[in-house]
Amino acid sequence: MEYKLKRIGKMAFYAKTPSGHDVYMDAKESSGGDGSAPTPMEMVMAALMGCTSMDVVAILSKMKVENYSYWIDASYEYSQEHPKVFTKIELTYHFSGGDLPKEKIEKAVSLSQERYCSVSAMLKKAVEITMKIEYKEDEI
Amino acid sequence: MEYKLKRIGKMAFYAKTPSGHDVYMDAKESSGGDGSAPTPMEMVMAALMGCTSMDVVAILSKMKVENYSYWIDASYEYSQEHPKVFTKIELTYHFSGGDLPKEKIEKAVSLSQERYCSVSAMLKKAVEITMKIEYKEDEI
Repeated sequence: MEYKLKRIGKMAFYAKTPSGHDVYMDAKESSGGDGSAPTPMEMVMAALMGCTSMDVVAILSKMKVENYSYWIDASYEYSQEHPKVFTKIELTYHFSGGDLPKEKIEKAVSLSQERYCSVSAMLKKAVEITMKIEYKEDEI
Repeated sequence: MEYKLKRIGKMAFYAKTPSGHDVYMDAKESSGGDGSAPTPMEMVMAALMGCTSMDVVAILSKMKVENYSYWIDASYEYSQEHPKVFTKIELTYHFSGGDLPKEKIEKAVSLSQERYCSVSAMLKKAVEITMKIEYKEDEI
């Protein structure tokens, strides 16, 4: 499988992914781009959040846990020197619903971070990734 | 700066990046999703290619090298076991144009991989990343 990325503007790039979807990236105006699309580092952070979220939802589904609302947020620190890598990432997994099965949710989050999430497995060799879980009962 | 990612389908997620752009991800149908958007691992690969490409274009611009066409492709291997990480990535930087300044181009690619590219700096702690450069003279 091959990926190909083409230059389509000053600092703007376009790729079609192997699954057939379009991806656009651009640098911010402060970095010499036109700010027309997400930056590569934004894509990496979104990918990390998406990867672990897909795991968690899939694992909970296998555990017959379906009735909840879910979102995730991330806060981070990054290096002020080149290369401007993330140095710390904290993921907060949010679940809301009635009668949330906390033990299963904790198991699903752990399984993702320790075993399944490919993006996390690669990034955590370079970045400290911590996680916490927040619950809101009775809100779906 | 915070990122927030919301579930919008079975395995589909949406985030607005800090720069204000929309990012969608989904799992493939073979992984329980609807295949409606790129996967997280596709986003990571695109981000790597975009990150190093922005560096190369920006460094060449500082060297007053502007008159060329550019694209990049990537081939890769990945683990068959969980977590399904990339295990090898080969980036091929393609330049076409007349009278290409190969020494400056090589310098720009090296500077990106060794110093500037944040995505590469994080990934290469987990994945072997190699690169090569292909030139096509007299085609812009």
